[in-house]
Amino acid sequence: MDAPVLRVGVIGAGNVGGALVELLSDPSRHVALVDAATATLELVGVAVRDASRARPEVPTHLITTDAASLAARDDLDILVEVIGGIEPARTYIESALSRGTSVVTANKALMAEAGTQLAALAHEHGADLFYEAAVGGAIPILRALRSSLAGERIERVMGIVNGTTNFILSKMTSEASDYAPALAEAQALGYAEADPSADVEGFDAAAKVQIISSLAFGTRLAGESITREGITGVRAVDVEFARRAGFVIKLLGVAERVGETGISRRVHPAMVPLEHPLAAVHGAMNAVFVEGAKSGPLMWLGPGAGGYPTATAVLGDVLDAARNRVSGRHDVPFSIDETLHAIDTNDIASVFYLSLDVLDQPGVLAAVAGVFGDHGVSIQSMEQSGVADEARLSFVTHVARTGDVFATLNDLASLASVDSIGACIRVIDGGDR
Amino acid sequence: MDAPVLRVGVIGAGNVGGALVELLSDPSRHVALVDAATATLELVGVAVRDASRARPEVPTHLITTDAASLAARDDLDILVEVIGGIEPARTYIESALSRGTSVVTANKALMAEAGTQLAALAHEHGADLFYEAAVGGAIPILRALRSSLAGERIERVMGIVNGTTNFILSKMTSEASDYAPALAEAQALGYAEADPSADVEGFDAAAKVQIISSLAFGTRLAGESITREGITGVRAVDVEFARRAGFVIKLLGVAERVGETGISRRVHPAMVPLEHPLAAVHGAMNAVFVEGAKSGPLMWLGPGAGGYPTATAVLGDVLDAARNRVSGRHDVPFSIDETLHAIDTNDIASVFYLSLDVLDQPGVLAAVAGVFGDHGVSIQSMEQSGVADEARLSFVTHVARTGDVFATLNDLASLASVDSIGACIRVIDGGDR
Repeated sequence: MDAPVLRVGVIGAGNVGGALVELLSDPSRHVALVDAATATLELVGVAVRDASRARPEVPTHLITTDAASLAARDDLDILVEVIGGIEPARTYIESALSRGTSVVTANKALMAEAGTQLAALAHEHGADLFYEAAVGGAIPILRALRSSLAGERIERVMGIVNGTTNFILSKMTSEASDYAPALAEAQALGYAEADPSADVEGFDAAAKVQIISSLAFGTRLAGESITREGITGVRAVDVEFARRAGFVIKLLGVAERVGETGISRRVHPAMVPLEHPLAAVHGAMNAVFVEGAKSGPLMWLGPGAGGYPTATAVLGDVLDAARNRVSGRHDVPFSIDETLHAIDTNDIASVFYLSLDVLDQPGVLAAVAGVFGDHGVSIQSMEQSGVADEARLSFVTHVARTGDVFATLNDLASLASVDSIGACIRVIDGGDR
Repeated sequence: MDAPVLRVGVIGAGNVGGALVELLSDPSRHVALVDAATATLELVGVAVRDASRARPEVPTHLITTDAASLAARDDLDILVEVIGGIEPARTYIESALSRGTSVVTANKALMAEAGTQLAALAHEHGADLFYEAAVGGAIPILRALRSSLAGERIERVMGIVNGTTNFILSKMTSEASDYAPALAEAQALGYAEADPSADVEGFDAAAKVQIISSLAFGTRLAGESITREGITGVRAVDVEFARRAGFVIKLLGVAERVGETGISRRVHPAMVPLEHPLAAVHGAMNAVFVEGAKSGPLMWLGPGAGGYPTATAVLGDVLDAARNRVSGRHDVPFSIDETLHAIDTNDIASVFYLSLDVLDQPGVLAAVAGVFGDHGVSIQSMEQSGVADEARLSFVTHVARTGDVFATLNDLASLASVDSIGACIRVIDGGDR
């Protein structure tokens, strides 16, 4: 019998697509497939927007501008989609899946929005839908959740899943700099967009939390219930406070069980103890920290972006889909637990660090402390430092309900003696890990 | 059609086996299997040495002392072996595989010694042989190497794969203590054996390097070519020197490509820069740091031992073998690259930290420096500190050939003015990462 040839089409030849085509052109990278399924891969088409652009890594005769026709080819075994965004990516993917063509995508936005529906469509037509590269670039976290941890009960996932914000916070930590210059440096180096809001406001991290939590807990909860707090309010003084206390500030995406059927999902900055593995995730690196009921804590770390790293994750998915195809099977969608419901972030308890600038006058501290007391938020420690004719107050609370802390901040903002409210940062401590 | 029932036998009901039987008894942990293959698992026998011992987690009617007959049952789909050691484990596993029964094992020693042969036997009979739990406990590193990274070219693997030595070194670091009291504490807490040599001399780590490197590079090289240097020579002063220089001392298992066809494999203590992710692996945790040609650096971290963590890895393998079984396929052994050959550790270049105690006399430093010069080992920095009528010399070399450094130490030991040779520790720097 001749070795089967699996026909692969790629939509998108940018950073990731170009790297993938280069990897696919190297037969030594198919060895595992040849061994596992005595099959080979054949690249049959690469859809691009502008066919006139020079792409030395893509054979000219494979280039097409007709992505819709490539996705709809009846002889296609695997379609790779690396253009991103909701449309037209979704239409291409639906077209392929409904013909029984397996799909590999790196599309975070689309998988966060419609992953469950697309997975069901794939299953209906006996195809695979893999999207390892949509979260954490090269980090193989999604396959681990689907296979190695398939029999484990996940209790909590905490991820540093946005490289831009981790780069900015790492800069602020290593250079004791403020947010604005660190952002400017990230922009100059290409780590941050001209409009950085998708990253610094936590939208990107929230999409990844949506994808990870769907797999880790089997929820069908919509992404809208994930609350977001970004890093724009974090200042050099907060980073310095954290450092002195043995912490480092990270933007975390968190998804965790609350009781038997509750799931809390949120993105916010947090003070992570220096001895926690997440504290050692520097620069643009990503990491996902998973706590299983029986496995204990596990962490995956790696580059969260970049053409080649992301392309290796896509290639891993392509090889997996190819092996399944040869043996005539497909992976089924992850289990859905319909009993799970979203927990309001306001009802989550944590230790908080808060900082505010107040007028340096007698009685101010008493007024401020009174507001904390009004909301039942108990203060663990307070630090006062003078800045010109103002004073900066830094508080660490005892464990408090998030909603009560937010209400406290709201009331503090309306005190005449409070000049400005600074950061509001969760403190991840021993009990909260 | 009725859902197929997959029959599982377990040999061993100790720490790991008992935890596994408990997990297998919880149907919620089979949900992924039900979804993926509409199949269920049935535990049909648990082989133990002493049937009279109370095991509340194991139903009495399943207990047998006849492991050989359990392994040889014709109706068995999956055999789990968690007794460890070479024999009789190997005989049981061969018995099962030769009948086409898939095998899941946590047996590090056996897989290091005979993994390639047993994998071939499994393939010959259409069965799976999975052993995720043999390396790094709950950490799903082997499956990642087999699947997610199947298309990637791995350049280097560095692992903290022995929890006992990492516990001891972490203690020495956090408490500035010497080796002996840290070992005693590890023994008191059950982290180290009464005879700790398998751990502290690097035998255990070498077995894991053998298993990981086989998968990462596709080598068939025997474990004997892995060189071992343990941690018994590491002293509090070395840990303190490392701390001041921004490093932490770890016992690393290393496997790396050298040129096109060379593979160097070795176990030795190393100074790891504090900003390296491996530096944040504390206590009895394990971690594996993998550098891929295109993926960039990836790290996996988790508990390297313990009944439940190890059992979750075994369960992941059981579910995988079960899925394969239902779809009538099996994973094939990893690709072997016959061109690879072992590189002599003596020929590997590195920066070294060395310490020695010498008589505090004029001319001693000149004599010592002369020996370095004789072997072409260039000194980057030297520090001298007085200890009673002795002096302690700490050297950091420039990049030097390991064989030349060992020859230097050998000659230094025969100098009359040298009282004792202390640690010899590689320094992992930017260029060596």
